[in-house]
Amino acid sequence: MALSWGEITHITKVDPAKTLPQELTVLRDTDLVMVGGSDNVTEANTLETVDRIRTSVPDIPILQEPYSSGQISKETVKAVDYLSIPAVYNGDRDHFYTKHLSFFTSLTTKAEEITGTGLPVVGDLIASKGRDAVADVAAKLLPEGYVIQNLDSKAARVTGVERRFSEDEIAGTALATETFYQFPIMYIEYSGMYGGPSDVEAAAKFLDETVLLYGGGIQSHEQAREILSAGADAIVVGDCFHDDPARFRRTIP
Amino acid sequence: MALSWGEITHITKVDPAKTLPQELTVLRDTDLVMVGGSDNVTEANTLETVDRIRTSVPDIPILQEPYSSGQISKETVKAVDYLSIPAVYNGDRDHFYTKHLSFFTSLTTKAEEITGTGLPVVGDLIASKGRDAVADVAAKLLPEGYVIQNLDSKAARVTGVERRFSEDEIAGTALATETFYQFPIMYIEYSGMYGGPSDVEAAAKFLDETVLLYGGGIQSHEQAREILSAGADAIVVGDCFHDDPARFRRTIP
Repeated sequence: MALSWGEITHITKVDPAKTLPQELTVLRDTDLVMVGGSDNVTEANTLETVDRIRTSVPDIPILQEPYSSGQISKETVKAVDYLSIPAVYNGDRDHFYTKHLSFFTSLTTKAEEITGTGLPVVGDLIASKGRDAVADVAAKLLPEGYVIQNLDSKAARVTGVERRFSEDEIAGTALATETFYQFPIMYIEYSGMYGGPSDVEAAAKFLDETVLLYGGGIQSHEQAREILSAGADAIVVGDCFHDDPARFRRTIP
Repeated sequence: MALSWGEITHITKVDPAKTLPQELTVLRDTDLVMVGGSDNVTEANTLETVDRIRTSVPDIPILQEPYSSGQISKETVKAVDYLSIPAVYNGDRDHFYTKHLSFFTSLTTKAEEITGTGLPVVGDLIASKGRDAVADVAAKLLPEGYVIQNLDSKAARVTGVERRFSEDEIAGTALATETFYQFPIMYIEYSGMYGGPSDVEAAAKFLDETVLLYGGGIQSHEQAREILSAGADAIVVGDCFHDDPARFRRTIP
């Protein structure tokens, strides 16, 4: 099931380690929910969060964005629609590929213990290791090329980001994402701080197949419009969803 | 122009820094020529080599596999059919992504000085920075996910490879290549030493869209058949092309 990115301009990032608003129907006007955080996220609180969201807004697709394989299990894979794994371009080696190769090696060798059997994604792979199975994995996985631009954020600390990318480097990273890594998503993350439209403008020039997401500090309709006008396919709004649902509502285009 | 991988089982790797055989028509039964090496390759000897090959066997596609951007110019991009850039999974950080991001950043900012204008690939990009241009770049580029398994080779030293991958890791890397990085090529490189079929068997189970190449020490019809039977889409033969054309001929399936 491919996401229809053309219809997605507003994404809500829900952090399972934070308190959720009492009333989740506020999510009904967002286009996609991303479940993930940078700290204290577990399999259990992920499942609980996904379950609450499904109950309140059953038609909104849910994407899990884990930062460690401990947050992925048979149950989480069943519960979510997409599994997105970030590769952080300006992070350390672990967060661009070492952890990813370990994860996929685990899938091929210890798949039963990590994920159980009978899953839509990995079960068939274990059974047949064949053509259709790999296609199924590919269909549910959404690799993301990340650039984390707020060095003071938890996300930067967790992934070993020590340096912001310049706008030229953002442009080059976009071209590499589009033509070399061919990730379906490039994500410019200002985590908690509004970064303005310039990085998005730099990246958007070089993206075509790859979808461009911007996240960080969006708290108003004007900021949402500014980022979308600069060329982002969608904005990701997180903090104010947890802190101030009325403000959150104003970020929806 | 997409390569028809179904028709390619035998690839010849021609090292511009080594002496070429007097008679290049020996290449007429190979399916693809890769031009590249690990040492002393320059833009000039690349161009000279490509020119000699074109003259002798005009119908064989030529792919350049550079290890540094100094080997790429306006002329080389024009001269070759494909440009393949290796990302070495078990190498250092530079050889998996830092150099790649620098290269693409250069393309977006200093494209004129690196590559000139009017090229089929990059020229249009500079002119329009638009949709079709990026598609053109994507069409000529063939990213390769590499695993270098001979620690004593020059290739391993150049790319910072300090550890061979186990068969389990090869399998995981194949699954990651197919589903996460989505590189069109995975290349198992034993550089100068025959590695046998086991790594190829481990990788082939998890590859579908991604083409599997094996290179290293193939000197006979039996070895060629063994690697192809193990699941490689094509074998890459290099050393004996330079050293012993009669032996080289016996590696052609």
